Amino acid sequence: MRLSRAFLPTLKETPAEATIASHRLMLRAGLVRQTSAGIYAWLPLGWRVLQKIEQIVREEQDRAGAQEILMPTIQSADLWRQSGRYDAYGPEMLRLRDRHDRECLYGPTNEEMVTDIFRGYAKSYRDLPRNLYHIQWKFRDEVRPRFGVMRGREFLMKDAYSFDVTKEGAQHSYRQMFLAYLRTFARMGLKAVPMRADTGPIGGNLSHEFIVLAETGESQVFVSQDLLDMDALASAPDYGADLAPAVDAWTSHYAATEEMHDPAAWEQVPEGKRVSARGIEVGHIFYFGTKYSASMGLSVQGPDGKTVVPEMGSYGIGVSRLVGATIEANHDEQGIKWPDAVAPFKAVVINLKQGDAACDALSERMYAAIPDSLYDDRSERAGPKFADADLMGHPWQVVVGPRGAAAGVVELKRRATGEKQEVSPEDALAKILG
Amino acid sequence: MRLSRAFLPTLKETPAEATIASHRLMLRAGLVRQTSAGIYAWLPLGWRVLQKIEQIVREEQDRAGAQEILMPTIQSADLWRQSGRYDAYGPEMLRLRDRHDRECLYGPTNEEMVTDIFRGYAKSYRDLPRNLYHIQWKFRDEVRPRFGVMRGREFLMKDAYSFDVTKEGAQHSYRQMFLAYLRTFARMGLKAVPMRADTGPIGGNLSHEFIVLAETGESQVFVSQDLLDMDALASAPDYGADLAPAVDAWTSHYAATEEMHDPAAWEQVPEGKRVSARGIEVGHIFYFGTKYSASMGLSVQGPDGKTVVPEMGSYGIGVSRLVGATIEANHDEQGIKWPDAVAPFKAVVINLKQGDAACDALSERMYAAIPDSLYDDRSERAGPKFADADLMGHPWQVVVGPRGAAAGVVELKRRATGEKQEVSPEDALAKILG
Repeated sequence: MRLSRAFLPTLKETPAEATIASHRLMLRAGLVRQTSAGIYAWLPLGWRVLQKIEQIVREEQDRAGAQEILMPTIQSADLWRQSGRYDAYGPEMLRLRDRHDRECLYGPTNEEMVTDIFRGYAKSYRDLPRNLYHIQWKFRDEVRPRFGVMRGREFLMKDAYSFDVTKEGAQHSYRQMFLAYLRTFARMGLKAVPMRADTGPIGGNLSHEFIVLAETGESQVFVSQDLLDMDALASAPDYGADLAPAVDAWTSHYAATEEMHDPAAWEQVPEGKRVSARGIEVGHIFYFGTKYSASMGLSVQGPDGKTVVPEMGSYGIGVSRLVGATIEANHDEQGIKWPDAVAPFKAVVINLKQGDAACDALSERMYAAIPDSLYDDRSERAGPKFADADLMGHPWQVVVGPRGAAAGVVELKRRATGEKQEVSPEDALAKILG
Repeated sequence: MRLSRAFLPTLKETPAEATIASHRLMLRAGLVRQTSAGIYAWLPLGWRVLQKIEQIVREEQDRAGAQEILMPTIQSADLWRQSGRYDAYGPEMLRLRDRHDRECLYGPTNEEMVTDIFRGYAKSYRDLPRNLYHIQWKFRDEVRPRFGVMRGREFLMKDAYSFDVTKEGAQHSYRQMFLAYLRTFARMGLKAVPMRADTGPIGGNLSHEFIVLAETGESQVFVSQDLLDMDALASAPDYGADLAPAVDAWTSHYAATEEMHDPAAWEQVPEGKRVSARGIEVGHIFYFGTKYSASMGLSVQGPDGKTVVPEMGSYGIGVSRLVGATIEANHDEQGIKWPDAVAPFKAVVINLKQGDAACDALSERMYAAIPDSLYDDRSERAGPKFADADLMGHPWQVVVGPRGAAAGVVELKRRATGEKQEVSPEDALAKILG
């Protein structure tokens, strides 16, 4: 994309309402614009990141055997009365009435709806196990929305729901998601730590949160260095096999949020390995048994002809929140430092002398050779071009100036490390295209 | 995907509420499930189609120079008061109040919001032209939702908005979208005819509808055969060049909806070329000048230092409606006949004797060799397998039976024509992957 024709606005001033780094940088770099309190429009730069994150989530859900659907945003209140949550859910639920005065709501989550859909088709144990997910906008009417997309009101979530005939099956489904989540976050360049969690309003008896460590995180966490040293991408899970050993390897190390912290157990972790840090929740998985299937009348015929009430779990990833979390974990004073996998553009080509024949030719050549690249072809001084490149956080900057163009070299800067080197155009391409 | 593990439910009975073919087939083939009046959940089969349609729309918008953003579904009433439409818009607007009693609405369209976003950044004529689009769920509270996704309440629309400094520029932006729309529908396997339209509630002075011909279409249309014979994919437009000749070639033939029909001009069309048919609107483009920019205070500094109020247009495609329109134009008594480009699966491999070693081996081999294929590996009789394949409408059926497996042949059926032939597995792959 050519910056001179793109809609990639940046702001010089830091908006006063932004108190944390990701919020500030998302506004300044032009990723989002607030349209109402806690509601954001995604501008092209932010939208590209959101799509890349969404695609990684989708690929890992599919790989783990989950199947994608799309449920609507508006739900009927009647559905939520069946589970008893319509009255139990507080003022965070956005309730409304349609023109026929029917009570509806903007879905904050989809346990009821997916159970209703599934019970419409599943008749036999042969129709299970199934894991259905969707990536859809949700609404929670936070009383004080803040921190940008980290605690917005309209937000994008991936939520999956598993249906199994037995408790053992449900545990297997839970483990599939546990391992898929670790891969998902690792592919995005994030270190997300699974922590045993309270089951809260969803209910049930087994739950883990996935927490990204970042200085500005909202909650205190305690984790063993051994867990931080594990690599989720070291081997690909065989999702059909027994996953207990792989999950146990992750859960055998100490990791807890403040709420679940056990100082006595923490004392058992060798002192040099105790990491106390701040964290941001980016995923949450639950096994809740028959809570919704029983209350909503979902049952199937078992192998022995008797009625079985399926065991369920639900599995959420905060897709729009991940944009903020990624920035919290990857930025400096100048701007964002995108991990390669979710960067809006792989590289920016900065032409320092727009209109100079040699600079234009070399810049065009580099721009054409790098797929998914941005070309800063504006008639601007070098200063603002460098500042915008650092602010927007492209992983690579290819700087083309008159002296370099004459000598057949470009300056290649790696945003994450700040490292710069003069290299031939071919060497620059080899490094960027890997 | 293996059908034995997939969530691809089909219905034997035709649901009573479905009065038109696409609605009936979408329910029976398990593309969607109604969750409230006029609101649908997209099951895996339907979701795959919707994503393919969305991707074609996106690629052609990008190619024409439009840039993707994503605006939220919930909008503030204040924004709509600025244009005067908050009170003017009827009961189809879903109005609501949040927990702080602020008036909001579920967006039925986005002229106000995109104008507000754009005025937040554009300062100079150099920031124009721009065309911003998004693909987002909208809500129109139809009093009597019907025809399935064709007239639903929550629906997916692509809407683009162009901003230009001059009327000539705006006309160029309009023509870019005009030609992009023709390519978009043609790539989906649809013949969509552009027809001069009334500008209606959006206002303005130039508008075209794009109408797919189908027997069950909602409105009567009159079109010259010469226009139907034109091929939108014959050459790729150079969107930077003068597009008037290309657009004029399309608009010089007679084409009109009943509303805009001119019997005198119709008489001028040679009798053998007068096609009177039913049609379904799938796209609508408008040039409306400064209606929103003026009322909402969007202006930029022109080349001469004077203030300019940008000329705008808006361009919509009914993405979810296109699923229904495609089925209306492509089906028979047995089910759907998907055009290749939007088919949920490229082919289905039908194993007629699950558990037979030769059938299983050959079926697995064919399934592995065809990307994006479905494998009917259920322990079912042949009849229901054939019926489901015809109903779901996969473009190719690869039938593997015991006699064929022994002789090294498969039966290959083309769903669109019903043509069947016994061929070697290699020949079948060559035709399918073609």
